Amino acid sequence: MDPIREAQRQWIAHGWDAAADGMALVTSLARVHQLVMERIDASLRPHDLSFARYEVLRLLAFTHGGELPMAKLGSRLQVHPASVTSAVGRLEKQSLVRRARSETDRRVVLAAITDEGREAVEAATVSLNTEVFEKPGIEEVRELTALLSQLREASGDSVGTSMRTGE
Amino acid sequence: MDPIREAQRQWIAHGWDAAADGMALVTSLARVHQLVMERIDASLRPHDLSFARYEVLRLLAFTHGGELPMAKLGSRLQVHPASVTSAVGRLEKQSLVRRARSETDRRVVLAAITDEGREAVEAATVSLNTEVFEKPGIEEVRELTALLSQLREASGDSVGTSMRTGE
Repeated sequence: MDPIREAQRQWIAHGWDAAADGMALVTSLARVHQLVMERIDASLRPHDLSFARYEVLRLLAFTHGGELPMAKLGSRLQVHPASVTSAVGRLEKQSLVRRARSETDRRVVLAAITDEGREAVEAATVSLNTEVFEKPGIEEVRELTALLSQLREASGDSVGTSMRTGE
Repeated sequence: MDPIREAQRQWIAHGWDAAADGMALVTSLARVHQLVMERIDASLRPHDLSFARYEVLRLLAFTHGGELPMAKLGSRLQVHPASVTSAVGRLEKQSLVRRARSETDRRVVLAAITDEGREAVEAATVSLNTEVFEKPGIEEVRELTALLSQLREASGDSVGTSMRTGE
């Protein structure tokens, strides 16, 4: 039995027809998110990284000079400043990131990736690519991503136009 | 700028073409999940409920007699037993659920919804239906749900056949 389908049946039986499809969508999203995060966590566990910390390292490694102001990290990763502080604090304890004051503006705190951090993120990226990202589980990856981009846009995210059409 | 599109560009620039689309899909899923959960949390806040506690109440209210064994609650909601224990514990403190031993098998702990719990879950359902589920943000709700069902099925979930085809 599919619990989501059963819930949808109940919604309709209670006269909530107008909400039944939306309920099934939101519940499916939550379930798929849970399943995908389980796969990501399993892939990152040998690297002693959470997905949040991986994302910080990945962004810093992509960035010229390997460093970014803490505030910029949060806006680029679309997460709350408190989450960035927590992730960077943990990464600093792991010696994968260090925090420093900006030379040009002493009020700005920078997070900078260390050589050890660069090694860790490249190894973790290989694991994620081969174990998760190259095996998404369905054929219609671009179609699904395009529909999710429409949902993001409806919530105010700015999304690339070509992702909307799935090209 | 779309951070997900920028990440996809970086993935291709680093030669990880085979993983770029899957990365964009997983990252889009995480972002949409975050956006939808923000809407759900806002809708449930006036009812002093989290989505996890709402789901427990909703399932109990749907169930004949308004009670289920704790283990069954976990399997039906597809969550870890520890999460069920935590949610039911909190609901019990709110007087929305009470725990009792089964009359027929004293080893089994049942969670039973109270009259106050029934009132709370009906009010919360009205909020969720009108504020979230009836306004999913896109037209292609069934198409998106069907694609998500395919992903669930690929991960071992049993899904209803008609949800797979979006009918």
